[in-house]
Amino acid sequence: MNKAVREIDPNSDAAIAARVDPRPIEEIGAKLGVPVDALFRYGHYKAKIALDFARRAEVRADGKLILVTAINPTPAGEGKTTTTIGLGDALARAGKKVAIALREPSLGPVFGSKGGATGGGHSQIIPMQDINLHFTGDFHAISAAHNLLAAAIDNHVYWGNALDIDTRRINWRRVVDLNDRALRSVVVGLGGPANGFSREDGFDITVASEVMAIFCLARSLNDLEERLGRMVVAQTRARQPVTASQLKITGSMTALLRDAFQPNLVQTLEGTPAFVHGGPFANIAHGCNSVIATRTALGLADYVVTEAGFGADLGAEKFLDIKCRQAGLAPSAVVIVATVRALKMHGGVAQKDLGPENVEAVQRGAGNLVRHIENMKAFGVPVVVAINRFTSDTPSEIAAIEAACAAVDASVHLCSHWADGSAGAVALAEEVVSLTQQASNFSPLYESGLPLVQKIETIARRIYRAGGVSIEPGALKKLSEFEAMGYGDLPICMAKTQYSFSADPTRRGTPEDFILPIRDVRLSAGAGFVVALCGEVMTMPGLPSHPAAENIFVDETGFIGGLS
Amino acid sequence: MNKAVREIDPNSDAAIAARVDPRPIEEIGAKLGVPVDALFRYGHYKAKIALDFARRAEVRADGKLILVTAINPTPAGEGKTTTTIGLGDALARAGKKVAIALREPSLGPVFGSKGGATGGGHSQIIPMQDINLHFTGDFHAISAAHNLLAAAIDNHVYWGNALDIDTRRINWRRVVDLNDRALRSVVVGLGGPANGFSREDGFDITVASEVMAIFCLARSLNDLEERLGRMVVAQTRARQPVTASQLKITGSMTALLRDAFQPNLVQTLEGTPAFVHGGPFANIAHGCNSVIATRTALGLADYVVTEAGFGADLGAEKFLDIKCRQAGLAPSAVVIVATVRALKMHGGVAQKDLGPENVEAVQRGAGNLVRHIENMKAFGVPVVVAINRFTSDTPSEIAAIEAACAAVDASVHLCSHWADGSAGAVALAEEVVSLTQQASNFSPLYESGLPLVQKIETIARRIYRAGGVSIEPGALKKLSEFEAMGYGDLPICMAKTQYSFSADPTRRGTPEDFILPIRDVRLSAGAGFVVALCGEVMTMPGLPSHPAAENIFVDETGFIGGLS
Repeated sequence: MNKAVREIDPNSDAAIAARVDPRPIEEIGAKLGVPVDALFRYGHYKAKIALDFARRAEVRADGKLILVTAINPTPAGEGKTTTTIGLGDALARAGKKVAIALREPSLGPVFGSKGGATGGGHSQIIPMQDINLHFTGDFHAISAAHNLLAAAIDNHVYWGNALDIDTRRINWRRVVDLNDRALRSVVVGLGGPANGFSREDGFDITVASEVMAIFCLARSLNDLEERLGRMVVAQTRARQPVTASQLKITGSMTALLRDAFQPNLVQTLEGTPAFVHGGPFANIAHGCNSVIATRTALGLADYVVTEAGFGADLGAEKFLDIKCRQAGLAPSAVVIVATVRALKMHGGVAQKDLGPENVEAVQRGAGNLVRHIENMKAFGVPVVVAINRFTSDTPSEIAAIEAACAAVDASVHLCSHWADGSAGAVALAEEVVSLTQQASNFSPLYESGLPLVQKIETIARRIYRAGGVSIEPGALKKLSEFEAMGYGDLPICMAKTQYSFSADPTRRGTPEDFILPIRDVRLSAGAGFVVALCGEVMTMPGLPSHPAAENIFVDETGFIGGLS
Repeated sequence: MNKAVREIDPNSDAAIAARVDPRPIEEIGAKLGVPVDALFRYGHYKAKIALDFARRAEVRADGKLILVTAINPTPAGEGKTTTTIGLGDALARAGKKVAIALREPSLGPVFGSKGGATGGGHSQIIPMQDINLHFTGDFHAISAAHNLLAAAIDNHVYWGNALDIDTRRINWRRVVDLNDRALRSVVVGLGGPANGFSREDGFDITVASEVMAIFCLARSLNDLEERLGRMVVAQTRARQPVTASQLKITGSMTALLRDAFQPNLVQTLEGTPAFVHGGPFANIAHGCNSVIATRTALGLADYVVTEAGFGADLGAEKFLDIKCRQAGLAPSAVVIVATVRALKMHGGVAQKDLGPENVEAVQRGAGNLVRHIENMKAFGVPVVVAINRFTSDTPSEIAAIEAACAAVDASVHLCSHWADGSAGAVALAEEVVSLTQQASNFSPLYESGLPLVQKIETIARRIYRAGGVSIEPGALKKLSEFEAMGYGDLPICMAKTQYSFSADPTRRGTPEDFILPIRDVRLSAGAGFVVALCGEVMTMPGLPSHPAAENIFVDETGFIGGLS
């Protein structure tokens, strides 16, 4: 960026955040009863919770867990993270002992086009500059652990290959926490004998690493190391799986992850405690913050507001069927976020035509919202809808949403936390408190003992409303192999487009009578799920022609501008 | 590592360190007058110094600077880092206001074979587990900044290549902070049009990045960004240099480095303040900790003990001709570390035969030490020799060293800080204090205005004692080009084997009448030096057949074992 034009937009998220005086992190910890001794501070406004303290808290984990999810995302935007933060702040405003639990941002989207993941407007977590950049180094630790294993695999082959690894069948790629399309497909080991055996390889973005998924599901360092050891990284020439434990470096990987594994504590603009820890991909992984952070938060606060990636068909389903199942969690309420503009798009309106009132489009698009409400209720959890308000929304459009929700017995609250902070989510918070006093009868969608194929069919038919499932023969064979290897009890992690209930991203709204294609399946033995791929999954994004990186700068005071 | 054999060796560096109760980092800061507000703590025992406070301190920079260097290294080991720490502790024991300034370790050797870089025995900096692993994340920040630029280059080509970058002439490789030989030579951009243009590429270890060298030479964030912008990353089809500033992301790179740029403060086992910040390669870069850390330390302490990489022919020469010249520093004394065992090897004894007394070998090998003494004195700085004592050393062997040093008017002190801590370096500390009270007439070896070829010849003849220099025609041509581009005033950074004064690593002792070959030269325009390569330089190490990574583990208390 040209230095001459480095001006700070006063309405930017960064500028709004900079106008707030953050409270020392000791004060934020004290709100949850965390003594200063149990805080590993990273500067004045970030801390990790000492693991022994966190472990004592997470054993209790008796707070009310509130999941914020959304309709299928559209380019119009929904505001799931801002709603999570706004609701947390509103609960705090109502005098509740509350904590928020969110994922950490990846550097890839920060420098690409999506921007950071710290909310926006007056519903942000801070220090946003720090959280959006390296934060407490967790993702770097995960990258290092992942890449150490990759180096150990090639090193093992180099020094004689005692395990008889088939270098054509090494499935452990390398990672970098950036968008870098040139690294998607590479050949390594070129340059002669001293550099090893050349082979095809590639890089994923760090959030796509199975180490990230494991990091977010492990309950302890011991559990973490055992899961790392179970990861299948290659096959032998005899087609037998090679696990990470056979490379003898899971101890080093755990050492690299030791500090990172401690949950991070920050605050919202209004001083509400927020745990921000871990951030796995929401397609080939489960897309929620770490179990250790969520459970620690539940042990310290009476209410914990958290979010899941993508829409409720993917993010909430995985949150409930993978994370809650593995971690012994039961949510007390689900908030589904929608916007008038996004529902119009689900109703068939193009993004350029979102301006004028269009009640019919909202009515059609509300079908998408209604399905998610029905799906969430099917898990036995109380549901409420939050409309993240835009000034262009009209009363008739909002009434159309309310009517559609009333038909499935769901209440709707208008929220303006983006503009107003906690004051904009007071009614939503009151409703949530009321819902969590109801009995929740949460149960996962399917039993662990169900065959893997039937688990996939159950998700496809009951959540996506597919007419059927078409599994490629190769994938069917692999599923049988996974069951023969003893992995039949694992839950399914669906890798499907987030833009539609179907596998076709252009089919917004409420697609029906489609056949869900399962093109491939993968075993994530360490994370503890089987990934079902409905199409190509991009695990290494590229940068746009004018990446956000071109707008980011540091001024002479050290303020970082251009982040969003 | 097999879990059953995870036992902690009570004599290991990690175990010795674990038996010491570290002082809270606030107390360490207070020893140097750093208020708690100016400390960005990373847990209880590590902190960064707020940049505005550091900048105010570094402007003063009026302490006495003591450089610890060594004879040419041998497999017998010299103990430069432990001597730096032991001397610092001994100065503190004598009541002096002292700080130590060291490099940060790279993860590569920690998991490879060399081990960490936090000293050993009773002369260590702590917390050694943290420092040897991620520490405060500086190297990760440097890796991210480096790789963001790499991604931006390929992204620029992908989106139309407005700068007309010749993809065959991109010299900006990627980095990872691990030993991974498979990444030395790769092809990126495979897999079809969506992944960009395929081309040859490779990865270096992070410490070899020019970003690392810049990080360690920059005086301010502004200086840092300007240096980053000057880096030449590629050539156009018309063979014009393409600089990082043309890619428009030096602002983002600086943002990634903002926090890292603040000097890190830790302590020795005896509670002496230690700045540990930055760690560039000592062959293609200058091999010393950051200027901002050294100058901040000099602004806060009366005595600052620091070290340079490799032997005095490479490390000290670069420290004096590159770092001191650029940073406006003048050392008050130089300590040259040697061991009886290493001098025996310089005297022609094989490593397996080091046990028995061999006075003649010591006498022959002492020539190596004497040359380094003469060289350092030629810079106008007082010199003292520290013998890092081993129990096998005999009085006659030590007398032989003393006699050789007396002949060039240098005093010798026996040190046992490894075994005894500060008590083992009391006499050395007294001598150093005395030397720093003498007038120092430091001046660099050559003037900035000397032509580049003559600078190379000056180092080769006066420091290495070469009979002459043989520069490849291609390298000569490049040197002319660098001068034509306006870089003729830069100092030279020699990339030569550390094991010999010559370019032949097998020629220990005092080689003479050799011709130093200069095979290639490189411009590090951002760091501000011209690298002269005397042979192949390995910028990405490999892992050994049984890497240290196999011995590292975390026990149930969170203690990390197996680090050295």
